[in-house]
Amino acid sequence: MKKLFFIALSVLAVQLTSPAHAQFAKPEDAVKYRKSVFTVLATHFGGIGAVVTGKAPYDKATAIKNAEIVAALASLNSKAFPTGSKDNSKAKDAVWSKTENFQSCFTNFQKEADDLLAAAKKGEEAALKAPFLAVAKTVKECHETFKD
Amino acid sequence: MKKLFFIALSVLAVQLTSPAHAQFAKPEDAVKYRKSVFTVLATHFGGIGAVVTGKAPYDKATAIKNAEIVAALASLNSKAFPTGSKDNSKAKDAVWSKTENFQSCFTNFQKEADDLLAAAKKGEEAALKAPFLAVAKTVKECHETFKD
Repeated sequence: MKKLFFIALSVLAVQLTSPAHAQFAKPEDAVKYRKSVFTVLATHFGGIGAVVTGKAPYDKATAIKNAEIVAALASLNSKAFPTGSKDNSKAKDAVWSKTENFQSCFTNFQKEADDLLAAAKKGEEAALKAPFLAVAKTVKECHETFKD
Repeated sequence: MKKLFFIALSVLAVQLTSPAHAQFAKPEDAVKYRKSVFTVLATHFGGIGAVVTGKAPYDKATAIKNAEIVAALASLNSKAFPTGSKDNSKAKDAVWSKTENFQSCFTNFQKEADDLLAAAKKGEEAALKAPFLAVAKTVKECHETFKD
């Protein structure tokens, strides 16, 4: 067990600079993390978008998987904008001056992402469109206010 | 509805270059995506590691959230190494020459991540250690073979 523990410690040497969920040792760790979350979100939300806009065929399992990832990650970045983490990011000052509105973005996104997942589980392509558009609208509005 | 659709299309302009789950228009899209997945995984697995190694206090809800993210993302990168996507990444040639072993990494990781999530849900700090170490061992072994 002790040897395994040593292995684990070496594996985690870098990772331990992030002591717990959504706490970051350095501002640049937060920037890297939140950009990563947004990239994964965009990829899987884009997968649903491709179906809704007729660019990709509908597949029930794929739609559910994509919606599951979007729902699992939707709120993560609500805690990933610590004070002093504006550099090398597209975050506008509004992130830190309109914190209540900024947090509402994630509350709305999470609710709509949950709706999108519920729709995906219905197994009907047509059910994806309305909740997909609801998420897209929230994302667009939040980007306008909070992202350069 | 038409206006909303137009909004959605503009939001998705970039995202639609990834037509569906784990399919990538360009090799660099795959590299960016898989690095992002690994960053998010490392952050949340690191959150559990901090508890297991005594660097952070135990909190049941946080442990569960971290384990949920790890379990949700564990297998995603199994389809994120298309042929020709080695450039600007730390992937070794073995990724494409030992594909069966490479896929086993994700199968094992997923199983152990599911075990870790089940352990987190028990609500006992001590239950985290063994499944955490199992994941860490798999990650270390897979990195040795497949990551520079």
